[in-house]
Amino acid sequence: MRALAVYDNMLTLLSDAPQPEPQSGEVLIRTRLAGICNTDLEIVRGYFGYQGILGHEFVGEVVAGPSEWLGKRVVGEINIACGTCDLCLAGIPSQCRRRSTLGIAAYAGVFAEYFCLPVANLHVVPDEVTDPQAVFVEPLAAALQVLETAWIHPSDRVVLVGAGKLGLLVAQVLRLNGCDLTVITRHERQDRLLSRWGIAAARAGDVPSAQADVVVDCTGRAEGFADSLRLLRPRGTLVLKSTYHGLPTADLTRVVVDEVRVVGSRCGPFPAALRLLKAGLVDVESLIERRFSLADGLAAFEIAAQPGTLKVLLTG
Amino acid sequence: MRALAVYDNMLTLLSDAPQPEPQSGEVLIRTRLAGICNTDLEIVRGYFGYQGILGHEFVGEVVAGPSEWLGKRVVGEINIACGTCDLCLAGIPSQCRRRSTLGIAAYAGVFAEYFCLPVANLHVVPDEVTDPQAVFVEPLAAALQVLETAWIHPSDRVVLVGAGKLGLLVAQVLRLNGCDLTVITRHERQDRLLSRWGIAAARAGDVPSAQADVVVDCTGRAEGFADSLRLLRPRGTLVLKSTYHGLPTADLTRVVVDEVRVVGSRCGPFPAALRLLKAGLVDVESLIERRFSLADGLAAFEIAAQPGTLKVLLTG
Repeated sequence: MRALAVYDNMLTLLSDAPQPEPQSGEVLIRTRLAGICNTDLEIVRGYFGYQGILGHEFVGEVVAGPSEWLGKRVVGEINIACGTCDLCLAGIPSQCRRRSTLGIAAYAGVFAEYFCLPVANLHVVPDEVTDPQAVFVEPLAAALQVLETAWIHPSDRVVLVGAGKLGLLVAQVLRLNGCDLTVITRHERQDRLLSRWGIAAARAGDVPSAQADVVVDCTGRAEGFADSLRLLRPRGTLVLKSTYHGLPTADLTRVVVDEVRVVGSRCGPFPAALRLLKAGLVDVESLIERRFSLADGLAAFEIAAQPGTLKVLLTG
Repeated sequence: MRALAVYDNMLTLLSDAPQPEPQSGEVLIRTRLAGICNTDLEIVRGYFGYQGILGHEFVGEVVAGPSEWLGKRVVGEINIACGTCDLCLAGIPSQCRRRSTLGIAAYAGVFAEYFCLPVANLHVVPDEVTDPQAVFVEPLAAALQVLETAWIHPSDRVVLVGAGKLGLLVAQVLRLNGCDLTVITRHERQDRLLSRWGIAAARAGDVPSAQADVVVDCTGRAEGFADSLRLLRPRGTLVLKSTYHGLPTADLTRVVVDEVRVVGSRCGPFPAALRLLKAGLVDVESLIERRFSLADGLAAFEIAAQPGTLKVLLTG
């Protein structure tokens, strides 16, 4: 089968990768649509040390496995958990101490015609949700994790720093409780999208310091963290939504003196993301930059890596 | 009057500083005992840009001001608040946007025979609490702020990194709810003190990674922050209790991936600190290294700056 894999920091198009065999508890899934995420770009740059087939955002169809799953259109959670460690038993499988992660760590990903996933990770996609919507369930769930991580009140002043692919999903999720939201942007294209959703955009220098009750940093950059701290009021909450390159500097003294709360946020709730898409409360189609076939995967990654590019999709 | 002041990063003993005049709402206090804090040492090294009389830990006697305060033995909160900004009105005067800070920012400190402080900052010391105990109220309140900042459960595994003057107070406060506490130490002297209080001590390398529910970093060093993150379990809470030199590096990616909570913690509740001292629940006398008269203040600072030194006191 065709697949996009990374070996020694080199993205490679395989034309005759072996079709995977589902193990006990797993199904075989035919990829219908997959999305390229910044994490994929970083893996290709060598940040995670992963070798193998890439990709973790998908909507697909179950083609082998338990009969009750056959033919189902599914999305899937990306953490493959052991089910027995203390964190699994505490009900936090996404933080399993022995986890592997779809297309990110020790588990072959979805940029392929077929891939496997445990039944426990699957969620059936309702008929009302299209494939181009469903492929956004994983990042939309990650955006919703901001609300699992911090209690954001309708009366809060909230600033989001970093309006990339993930940031634009987080912005739409934050908008839904009526909070006073401003998104820090760098490009007019971001401003236009936000304007369509009725969300205020501003450049970093135009937002007053130390006023926001909550800041969400979607930049993954030390400068973004510094901007975020500057915008946050004393005793405010800063949610970190993206991983950072290397070992950034961080003004921890400001964290102490202003007594702020910095909270990391990773994978989120798939059922909630599916409910929002089914209800039409989040616009994901506007985030689609372009579609490529898997055979054109190398070109797709080149486009995806250009600054300001939104979501690049791959057809299975 | 005699006073210890810092000008251009130089500690200076003044012999004829003018006795201060209390302004409206202030009292004049005669210093009975004052304590040298790491913040004082950092101010002398130029970290805060403060010029003037140093010192913020004290017990003193009111010698001028409203009649109901005359003769009272008092301790005092160090943030001089405006009373009218949003944070003051929100009941958080310690984070006042227009605050000055006793001996730290724009307000003359207590390493002097006399100093002023607003009545609003004062707390009367109960007769049961001695001067050498009362002089610890400010840092003990700061230690208690850890419990204001994070909900620490009796069943939690808690690790404290950094057993200096403040760390040893934080350790004693944490011990009081029965939690499973381990303090990371570097010197046998710290081990002996902790042993006296029934608190487990260990070297950093001997404590397992990713197991602690709560970690408190009292080191103020980038390496201490890195140790703290290593010891913390996924979804755990890291309380930062000390300011950091310069702009440290910090593994923010780990904060995101492990979804941990990093919370800054500064000044704390004086009444609670006085209650603990009155009840005899915290041993502060063991933390006293030596006493000096104000006239020997320069020598006192030399001793206080030596690694491993505990609390150096100045008599007024």
